[in-house]
Amino acid sequence: MSRRRQIYEGKAKILYEGPEPGTIIQYFKDDATAFNAEKKGTISGKGVINNRVSEHIFSQLTHIGIPSHFIRRLNMREQLVKQVEIVPIEVIVRNVAAGSLSKRVGIEEGTPLPHTLLEYCYKDDALGDPLVAEEHIACFGWATQEEMQDISSMAIRINDFMAGMFAGIGIRLVDFKLEFGRLFDGDFSRIILADEISPDGCRLWDLETNEKLDKDRFRRDLGGEAEAYQEVARRMGLLPEGGLSEVLDLDSERKKRGK
Amino acid sequence: MSRRRQIYEGKAKILYEGPEPGTIIQYFKDDATAFNAEKKGTISGKGVINNRVSEHIFSQLTHIGIPSHFIRRLNMREQLVKQVEIVPIEVIVRNVAAGSLSKRVGIEEGTPLPHTLLEYCYKDDALGDPLVAEEHIACFGWATQEEMQDISSMAIRINDFMAGMFAGIGIRLVDFKLEFGRLFDGDFSRIILADEISPDGCRLWDLETNEKLDKDRFRRDLGGEAEAYQEVARRMGLLPEGGLSEVLDLDSERKKRGK
Repeated sequence: MSRRRQIYEGKAKILYEGPEPGTIIQYFKDDATAFNAEKKGTISGKGVINNRVSEHIFSQLTHIGIPSHFIRRLNMREQLVKQVEIVPIEVIVRNVAAGSLSKRVGIEEGTPLPHTLLEYCYKDDALGDPLVAEEHIACFGWATQEEMQDISSMAIRINDFMAGMFAGIGIRLVDFKLEFGRLFDGDFSRIILADEISPDGCRLWDLETNEKLDKDRFRRDLGGEAEAYQEVARRMGLLPEGGLSEVLDLDSERKKRGK
Repeated sequence: MSRRRQIYEGKAKILYEGPEPGTIIQYFKDDATAFNAEKKGTISGKGVINNRVSEHIFSQLTHIGIPSHFIRRLNMREQLVKQVEIVPIEVIVRNVAAGSLSKRVGIEEGTPLPHTLLEYCYKDDALGDPLVAEEHIACFGWATQEEMQDISSMAIRINDFMAGMFAGIGIRLVDFKLEFGRLFDGDFSRIILADEISPDGCRLWDLETNEKLDKDRFRRDLGGEAEAYQEVARRMGLLPEGGLSEVLDLDSERKKRGK
């Protein structure tokens, strides 16, 4: 494989220039960080699972008319996506109080919210991705009101779809993070779903036991994070019979062959 | 004077039962706190000035049709107000970046904002009055959408009026805090302006020198806070020729007479 130009290395992914103009390759790492990278570690096989989970969800969302940057999965850890200009706003969709919301407004973790709550954070690691309101987004021009309208209505639709999908496999979708991008066509741009949707950015609780099947296992030192990610992928029908080890064997074989 | 029942003691005010049902007496203390009461002190004469400044602004706002809880000033440190149910949302109106906004989104203090920014904080000392979005207010039922509509449109009108008033006396209105309350009439309620408007809850900079004429002098250990408050009252035409000392002499005389 020819050397590719690295565009950006984030906490959980590396972006490379894609084979054609306007494309990007997303490489999913096993690296895990929490609390704005104050805590660091790895979750074995996470990148492989997140690549598959995100592929699956983005493909399904296409079927209900949610446009996204996803083109196709290339291999175990890589997927080809459309190049977009990322909107500097993280969208948090919440169905049940947990994490920063519980701390911020003093509502016990696990309390169902009266209705789905959208939160916006300004994407800036140095500032710790601060919570902002639509007023800030408008005031500082981070997104237009039209863009925020598209973003919020897509976020609600994505939540409806994902809540249903996870409920079907015995998982409560507590909350999750979305990022959106601008896809340019000449001078015009439209908003499409970008980044990834995986157990890294979702809170997923077993419907029966409330067991956490997401990155909170890592954040809160609960252990069993690799198994939790695999459990999600297994329930989604994304792991072969042999489980992740079979996938990882294929992965390392592929690397040995220098592909 | 007959003993009055104290209803509540806050950081800068004490509330007593008023002479008639549905009324409250607001007593303005000299106590000053900052950073959620981590820092404590007193600013000599502050209560007297805030009582007058707030009386003046609330009276003026009545003339442009902003309903408020203010009935009349009773004496140096007390005013009579209507009893309301305080909406648990602090409204921050910002014209220039400063304080928590500058820290939160990394915008240098003193940067004029492209347009007036309304921020909402959930009133809860234990949680440190966290910033929230309209989505949180709706989700947790802290105010109805109609109430928030009334609150935001009043906040913008109050800002327009106050920006003009302070500009007229050589002061830049950087930002300020408002609180609103529900005035009940049987089962119905309407939103009116409550609490106070004074240099305690405003950032006021001299238009020429950018000198701070507000509580930031106390928060940031700049000194001269009592003089700054007096300067604001003086420019507003609220201090007699003899200045605050004359007012305070009257105040202590009044106390001696046991009134």
